[in-house]
Amino acid sequence: MRLSRYFLPVLKETPADAQIASHRLMLRAGMIRQASAGIYSWLPLGYKVLRRLEQIVHEEQQRAGHIPMLMPTLQSADLWRESGRYDDYGEEMLRITDRHNRDMLYGPTNEELITDIFRSYVSSYKSLPLTLYHIQWKFRDEIRPRFGVMRGREFLMKDGYNFDLTKEDALHAYNRHLVSYLRTYERMGLQAIPMRADSGPIGGDDTHEFLVLAETGESEVFYDSAVTDIKLGSRDIDYDSVDQCKAVMEEFTALYARTDETHDEAAFNAISEDRRRVARGIEVGQIFYFGTKYSEPMGATVVNDKGEQVPVHMGSHGIGVSRLIGALIEANHDDNGIIWPEGVTPYHCGIVNLKQGDAEADAACDGLYKALTDAGLDPLYDDRDERAGAKFATMDLIGLPWRITVGPRGLKNGVVELTSRRTGESEELSPEIAVSRIKDIYKDI
Amino acid sequence: MRLSRYFLPVLKETPADAQIASHRLMLRAGMIRQASAGIYSWLPLGYKVLRRLEQIVHEEQQRAGHIPMLMPTLQSADLWRESGRYDDYGEEMLRITDRHNRDMLYGPTNEELITDIFRSYVSSYKSLPLTLYHIQWKFRDEIRPRFGVMRGREFLMKDGYNFDLTKEDALHAYNRHLVSYLRTYERMGLQAIPMRADSGPIGGDDTHEFLVLAETGESEVFYDSAVTDIKLGSRDIDYDSVDQCKAVMEEFTALYARTDETHDEAAFNAISEDRRRVARGIEVGQIFYFGTKYSEPMGATVVNDKGEQVPVHMGSHGIGVSRLIGALIEANHDDNGIIWPEGVTPYHCGIVNLKQGDAEADAACDGLYKALTDAGLDPLYDDRDERAGAKFATMDLIGLPWRITVGPRGLKNGVVELTSRRTGESEELSPEIAVSRIKDIYKDI
Repeated sequence: MRLSRYFLPVLKETPADAQIASHRLMLRAGMIRQASAGIYSWLPLGYKVLRRLEQIVHEEQQRAGHIPMLMPTLQSADLWRESGRYDDYGEEMLRITDRHNRDMLYGPTNEELITDIFRSYVSSYKSLPLTLYHIQWKFRDEIRPRFGVMRGREFLMKDGYNFDLTKEDALHAYNRHLVSYLRTYERMGLQAIPMRADSGPIGGDDTHEFLVLAETGESEVFYDSAVTDIKLGSRDIDYDSVDQCKAVMEEFTALYARTDETHDEAAFNAISEDRRRVARGIEVGQIFYFGTKYSEPMGATVVNDKGEQVPVHMGSHGIGVSRLIGALIEANHDDNGIIWPEGVTPYHCGIVNLKQGDAEADAACDGLYKALTDAGLDPLYDDRDERAGAKFATMDLIGLPWRITVGPRGLKNGVVELTSRRTGESEELSPEIAVSRIKDIYKDI
Repeated sequence: MRLSRYFLPVLKETPADAQIASHRLMLRAGMIRQASAGIYSWLPLGYKVLRRLEQIVHEEQQRAGHIPMLMPTLQSADLWRESGRYDDYGEEMLRITDRHNRDMLYGPTNEELITDIFRSYVSSYKSLPLTLYHIQWKFRDEIRPRFGVMRGREFLMKDGYNFDLTKEDALHAYNRHLVSYLRTYERMGLQAIPMRADSGPIGGDDTHEFLVLAETGESEVFYDSAVTDIKLGSRDIDYDSVDQCKAVMEEFTALYARTDETHDEAAFNAISEDRRRVARGIEVGQIFYFGTKYSEPMGATVVNDKGEQVPVHMGSHGIGVSRLIGALIEANHDDNGIIWPEGVTPYHCGIVNLKQGDAEADAACDGLYKALTDAGLDPLYDDRDERAGAKFATMDLIGLPWRITVGPRGLKNGVVELTSRRTGESEELSPEIAVSRIKDIYKDI
């Protein structure tokens, strides 16, 4: 993309009402604009990151064998009356009346709707196991929306639902989701720690939240510092293997790591003092096993191999896709702006032309742009007629991890400058080598 | 995808309340399920087609230089009061009150919101031309939703908005959209004819609707039969060229083609009688030039090169993404089911194993599956333990354009059968040649 043809409305001033870094930076970098309280338009740069996260979530869900679909944003109140949650849910549920005076609602979650779909079509244990998921906009009418997309009202979420014959099978689905979530976050360059949590309005016994450590997190968290040393890395996990998924689950949840909701002071104090940590975290996902909580009242049963009708065992599993962008920026920024991890950056690298209109500099930039694009990469070329300082400031603010700077002086020596946004380190290289460096950086991403 | 691990709930019976072929077939093929009146869940197969159409729309919009973003589904009523449309819009607009008693609405379209974004950031003619678009769920509270996704209440639409300094520039944007829409529909295997139309609640003078001819269309259309001979084909159009876009516009709109709203009996009768056609059509898109209708009341102005504040010239341009699936099926089906054009098929080909459990047949199917997948194709392998007849009926119903049938008898002679869904013609080929045939068919799609 050439910046002269893009729509990147960066702001010079820091917006007064934004209290945390991610909110400030998303506004300043022209990623979002508030449409009304807690509701945002995703400007082109923000939208591009959102799509990138969505794509990673899709890939990792499908790698785990989960099947994508899409449920609507608006739901009929009837199903929620059947599950008993219509009255329980409180004022966070946005209730709507249509022109025929039917009670509807903007879905805050989809347990009822997916259970209705399941019971309409599936009648035999032979169709199990089954996990369906979607990525769809949800609405929660927060009384005080704040922190930008971190606590918005309209938000994008991946929610998935597993249907299994037995508790044992459903716990495998739970563990499989845990593995797929760890992989999802790691690909995004985030460390999200699974912590034993409280089930809230979803219900159920087993639940873990995934928390990204950040000073601005909404939850207080307590953990054994050794938990942050565990990584999934490039291990090859067979999602069909009960044992492999269980082993990962156990490894990642053996050490103490809890939110304030489930914190156990005595257990915490049993950790050696030098490893005890109290910090803050941002919740970016949650997995639940809740057994037959929805399948029993809603009649979602299958015939088992003995010919008996039994309610299915279910769980639900969510990733907060739009809020993840906030969490990513909280964990990856400095005073000058955002620093995207390579896995989620909206553009692979920036090209800064120090002397727009100079025939040689323009030709070198065009050449770099073409070489990168031909290699399947997506560069952002600042081809505006602006001062170098303004171009650098924009690149730093929007946080592309790599920048190639092209100027007449360097070109005389046959070099351009490759700069890392994270370390600030620069290197002079020939244009060809700069391109092959960038290709190398992204070859496994 | 292996069918044994998929969720494809096909129905044997024809649903009683579905009046048209596309609605019936989408229900029977397990593509959608009604969640409430005019609101559908997209089951995995339907979702896959929806995503495919979305992708084609994205690619063609971006090829035309239009910039993707995303506006929210819910909007504040304030902006609609500013444009004067809040009271005008009538009962089709779903009005919502949040917990703080603020008036909101589920966006049926986005002229106000995009104009607000534009005026907040853009102040100089130097930032023009600019075209922003998004693909987002909309809601229109139809009094009698029917025909499945063709006239639903919650529907997916691409809507794009151009901002230009002059009427002349905005008309180029209009023509550019016309070209990009023609290309979009042709890639989907659809012929959509631009017809002079009425502007309705969007407003403006210039507008064309794109109609797909189909007996079940909601609009009566009148056209010169020669209009159906014009194709864009593989011509290389430079979207920046005013002349090239204008020439395509003129070529495609020179002959008489109108909906009943703008029909002119005298002009129609001037066509030679053997070329006069009266038929029905499905509207799948519309483009508008409406000048300063929104920019004036909402104060969306820029400074021009003489230093004067002038309102920008705008247009809006929509493609009904979810309803396109209905139109595609209306135009592509037979008594046995859907017949997907190659450009939009959810899976590139089906593999039918006539004798599941037979070591040789299983191995041959696995080999085909792997070879196709390795070639970047997406086959659907019916690996269920079912009768051949049931497998063929499912494949015919869901309409994959190509099917490879594998059975012990053929394998003895080293052959499998490749069948075209459209013509019903079959050929016996070695598995290797069958794979290279399929690769060939999809190489430019």
